Parts: sequence; structure tokens; C-alpha cells
Amino acid sequence: MFTAAVITVSDKGYAGQREDTSGPNLVRILKENDYEVVFTTIVPDDKKMIEDVLKKCADELKIALVLTTGGTGFSPRDITPEATLAVVERLTPGIPEAMRAESMRITPKGCLSRSQAGIRGRSLIINLPGSKKASEENIMAVIGAVDHGLEMLYSEGSANCGG
Amino acid sequence: MFTAAVITVSDKGYAGQREDTSGPNLVRILKENDYEVVFTTIVPDDKKMIEDVLKKCADELKIALVLTTGGTGFSPRDITPEATLAVVERLTPGIPEAMRAESMRITPKGCLSRSQAGIRGRSLIINLPGSKKASEENIMAVIGAVDHGLEMLYSEGSANCGG
Amino acid sequence: MFTAAVITVSDKGYAGQREDTSGPNLVRILKENDYEVVFTTIVPDDKKMIEDVLKKCADELKIALVLTTGGTGFSPRDITPEATLAVVERLTPGIPEAMRAESMRITPKGCLSRSQAGIRGRSLIINLPGSKKASEENIMAVIGAVDHGLEMLYSEGSANCGG
Repeated sequence: MFTAAVITVSDKGYAGQREDTSGPNLVRILKENDYEVVFTTIVPDDKKMIEDVLKKCADELKIALVLTTGGTGFSPRDITPEATLAVVERLTPGIPEAMRAESMRITPKGCLSRSQAGIRGRSLIINLPGSKKASEENIMAVIGAVDHGLEMLYSEGSANCGG
Repeated sequence: MFTAAVITVSDKGYAGQREDTSGPNLVRILKENDYEVVFTTIVPDDKKMIEDVLKKCADELKIALVLTTGGTGFSPRDITPEATLAVVERLTPGIPEAMRAESMRITPKGCLSRSQAGIRGRSLIINLPGSKKASEENIMAVIGAVDHGLEMLYSEGSANCGG
Repeated sequence: MFTAAVITVSDKGYAGQREDTSGPNLVRILKENDYEVVFTTIVPDDKKMIEDVLKKCADELKIALVLTTGGTGFSPRDITPEATLAVVERLTPGIPEAMRAESMRITPKGCLSRSQAGIRGRSLIINLPGSKKASEENIMAVIGAVDHGLEMLYSEGSANCGG
């Protein structure tokens, strides 16, 4: 059973001006998929604050799976992918590719998600969109594969299948 | 109604040794999709010159949508994606992914496009292939989504759907 | 007829603790596709050693197509994509996208490959997974397009179709 975190990135959520529905929904999905959710928070669309909470989850709390929701769009304040790129050590480009490919089966706007994903230490960080519907569709497209990826990440050596 | 620019990147086009058919065709497509084309030019496959014209379009002319055509292949002089990566502040990886996925439905060679896309200030820059046929196929695969992306980019905050 | 190299990246293979089946299988596939395989080696999952052998293949041996197999997964030692990113001058993102899209048609785990590809000088470097089955599936998904890409890379100017 792997640990998980859900980080909601939203200026309005942080200011208490909007209810965060995506974050709690992701917590529910993670629990149903046998993850132990040990950390949740809401941060504003501030690159430094997003980087800091990602580093805390990876370096201090040693959380296996760190999901972010929000800040992946084209709005001037959307900066979650850039904060993620700044802290990950190894990219996992197939995860956002798979999520966007699935989104594009639902809507052509799926190509607008700027999500990134990558590994820092033994933490896998995945960006999800801010809307409850889109973040659920995105994580469900990869959740089975992610579990296998974490098994590799928590193994020793490079002996695993597909490696 | 958003403004747009079309930048043709071609040594031979710049030298007047080849007629640029892709650029004018993209101008036509943009107009048909309600963009106001305010700038067109031809530059050679020179990284610095491509960077300079992209910065001019974004920083001085404040153009919303900046399309390049040419320089995305494997030839030694093809350098448009690298010039683009050098000037964008935020990547929009789903746009080239969607364009290549569409190209690969037409030909396996679609995977050879090295196109990148990203945002600088309030300008969205998208690389397209140099051939008239391929550049049209590529932009048509994303034009609807791009319009929605620009609406987000010209909004305030990060409150938009999918963000 | 283009030259090719196959680099197997594996701690256990390098230590003689595991037979390398993927590398020889890739040599067979390359020969069947009219490549002249002029260099093969096994290196451990060491970033510096991978970078060095990639540079040797590109700069000294001037090999047109350089395939790596192994080190593309989530295990802590998997570092082939990062070594590749460190040495390539121009990314070819459509190649790993096409390989992963094909893998995902076979298994959802296909999104876990962290493969990268790019150009250094006149060498095209492509990461493949470590398993014999997956590396074959991956290269077969792009081998035809790769041949066309190399023709562009060994041409002059940027005049080719799709460029």
C-alpha cells in the first residue's frame, strides 16, 4: 500500500473564495485504489509555494504518489507544470501523454492541458487539471500503470520489466 | 477576434529561390477562422533570427497567435523548435502531441515533426511543418482548441475550465 | 545504407549476471532493415558512462542510428533518458510519442516508458525499453519513419518534405 498526497493549486481555493471539489474527489479515488492518503493541502498559483510543497512531500514526508490538481491551463497565473519541472529529477513523459490522449477522445480541448509528471527521489509527481471531471478522467486513464510504476520505483536495481 | 502572425522559416524562401506556399495558405486558414493576421514574414533557418522575430511578435506586437511554418524536420539546418524552446516561458506540449497524433493517422512519417509550442507573455507560439499540406493538416487538428486556449490566456486568474 | 549501433544499458548485463537478449535481437532487426551494425556494447546504468558511449558513437564513430535498450523505466537506477537528454542537440519528441502510443495499444503500462530521442550532429539516438519484447515493439513502430528521418539528416539544407 503506497502513500499519496493531493495538492490543490488554486488562488481562489486558497483564499477561501471557491470550494475545492477536485481535491476531495481525488482523495476518494486514491482510497478506492488502495492508496493511503497522508497529506492534503491547498496552495495558491505561486511557483515558489508549489515547488516548496512538492519538495516537502518528496523529501520530508517521503510520499510515493503526489497528485496536483489545478494550474495546468493557459491562464496567466497557471504555473503548476513549471513548478513541477523545476523539482523533478526524472521526467515520465508517457503519463501526461496518456492522460491527454484519453482527454482528447472526450474533447479536442484535451490538448490544452499542460500537465507534466516526473520523479523526485522515490516520489512520483503527476499534474492533473483543476476541474473535478477532468482530473478524475485523467488519473483514471493511468492509475493502473502508475501502481506498477511505483512498484518499480520502490524496487532495487533496474531489473524490472519494461525497464 | 484574436491577432495572428505567420512566420515562414526557410533558407530558400528567404533567398527568393522558392515560392512560399505554406505561409499564404496559413494566412487564409487563419482569416477563415476569424483571426486578424497582422504580421507575416520569411526568415532563414537561423536560430537567432527566428528567436528575434518570435520575441518581436510577442513582446512588441503583442500578437495572440504566432504560427511558424518550416524548420521542424531532421535536416541539419532545421532549428525552429530549438528557437521556440529558447523563447517560450511555458510549454504547451499537448498541442504538438495532438498535431503529431493526427499526422500519424495520415502517414507514419508524422512522427518526424519536431514541432514545439508554448506561451510567451500573452502570445501562443506554435511550430508547423514546412509543407503546405502538412502545415494545414497540423493546424486544422488543433484550431478549435487553440481558440479556447487563447480565451484562457486573455482571461484573468486561473479560474477557467480545465485549468 | 546507414550505419547503426546498439547500446545495451544494464547493471546486470554489464556484470555478466544476466544474458542480454534485447541487444542481439535489435541487431537482427536492424540488419533485416538494411542497416549496417558497426558497434555494440553493454554499459551499466551509469549516467556518465552512457553519455560517454553516446558521444563516442556520434562524434567519433559518426554512426547514423544509435539505439539504446534498457534504463527507461521507473527504477531508481534507470537513467538512460537523462543521459540522452544531456547529449542530444535537437529533440525528436514524435519518436518516443509514437512508440509509447503503440505500446499503449498493447498494454496500459506502455505509458511508463520514459524514452527520449534526439539528434547529435548527424546521429539519431533513440531510447528503447530493456525487455526484448518491448524494445522490438517500440522500434518496429517507427523504423520506416526513422529511415526517412535519416535521409533528411544526411541531406543538405531544410528543403525536405515535412520540414
